[in-house]
Amino acid sequence: MTSPPFRPRRVGILGGMGPAAAIDLQAKVLAATPAASDPEHLPIVVWNVPQVPDRVAAILGGGPSPAAAMVEGARALEAAGCEAFAMACNTAHHWAGEITASVRIPLIHIADAAIDELASRAVPSMSVGILATRGTLAAAFYGQRLARRGFRWLAPTQEEQARWVDVAIARVKAGDIAGARPCFEEAARALAGRGADVILLACTELPLAAEGADCPVPLLDASRALARAIVDFSLRR
Amino acid sequence: MTSPPFRPRRVGILGGMGPAAAIDLQAKVLAATPAASDPEHLPIVVWNVPQVPDRVAAILGGGPSPAAAMVEGARALEAAGCEAFAMACNTAHHWAGEITASVRIPLIHIADAAIDELASRAVPSMSVGILATRGTLAAAFYGQRLARRGFRWLAPTQEEQARWVDVAIARVKAGDIAGARPCFEEAARALAGRGADVILLACTELPLAAEGADCPVPLLDASRALARAIVDFSLRR
Repeated sequence: MTSPPFRPRRVGILGGMGPAAAIDLQAKVLAATPAASDPEHLPIVVWNVPQVPDRVAAILGGGPSPAAAMVEGARALEAAGCEAFAMACNTAHHWAGEITASVRIPLIHIADAAIDELASRAVPSMSVGILATRGTLAAAFYGQRLARRGFRWLAPTQEEQARWVDVAIARVKAGDIAGARPCFEEAARALAGRGADVILLACTELPLAAEGADCPVPLLDASRALARAIVDFSLRR
Repeated sequence: MTSPPFRPRRVGILGGMGPAAAIDLQAKVLAATPAASDPEHLPIVVWNVPQVPDRVAAILGGGPSPAAAMVEGARALEAAGCEAFAMACNTAHHWAGEITASVRIPLIHIADAAIDELASRAVPSMSVGILATRGTLAAAFYGQRLARRGFRWLAPTQEEQARWVDVAIARVKAGDIAGARPCFEEAARALAGRGADVILLACTELPLAAEGADCPVPLLDASRALARAIVDFSLRR
């Protein structure tokens, strides 16, 4: 008698917010997978449908809810046989409760993945600088989790957010990575200058702006942490 | 009265063969899309499930058919609301008839896309060097289409195929892009030396090996042509 061959679990990626971030997450999953041939890679299904109402506007009170569009995507991933799903957008996690209530498969939460990784390498008294959309900051799921795990944290001032972070994210979404980089650098320097020991990239567009950038403190890429968590889920025996 | 807002058509990508090629195709679709914000990008669903029997072995007579696994993916893309689908693998197109017979949505065929693009920029008397898997070459769908459109074409010798092309493709699949590049260069040089005026990259792994490579004649990337055809289909009014 031989045991049946090991089959990795199928995982869904709910993307479109924006589409480049969903492609970046897939590349990070691929890079994080110990595989030497096609069938050793993870079975992944991606819903990369960007016709979703603006998440930041919805959280800040100015726009329609994106929840229905995201629920449609999560249900499509479940119907395609995925055993869990992840969202390639931090801000989208504001609706995590509503979306997970509409499907039977679990969400691999990006903030849990990022903070687990932070906890594995940092001393809890470290101060974490969060770079994210206004929506993610207002939704507060990073701050709450960091505080619960004993981390101090800080975010950009309103002026820094408007001048640097919002612009960096918008430029990545428009495909202007080179233009996004200096904005990212200014924002990171400001947080480091106010005491951040590490910068948490808590927006899935920002790692694209941070690539090759000059930053005075280490970076923790929440997308990369999520990719590792996806691989762990899929390959867990 | 205002006309309803334009909505791009949803397109499915049948990937997994290998998974890096499906990510590369998505990045090419993104780059080929005229968009300045998230919702202007195409709605894409990706079945990137690499647990598919080996395509080349099946064509050359040595292995089980991958058709059932590919049909499962095509049906999942149709069920997810896609109005057409594309396959991020040239060799997989050997089963195009069987797969399209199992769904109601059309296939955007990579060889049609590549040869349309070749026809738009080359004079038909040009000689086209095809770099592809042994399976794609044996399946002959490129050669037949090229001959029908009045192009001359040539492929590597058996020795060149074994020493350079097969190795380049296998190295990309294993994540060794740097090791794949010199193999690609040798194969391209051999075809150019026997009269190829242009090299057709007719394997979705090869553009990754060709990036930054030294090649004596122009390249035509079938994946990039397919990405443009996907954008055209989605945005056609």
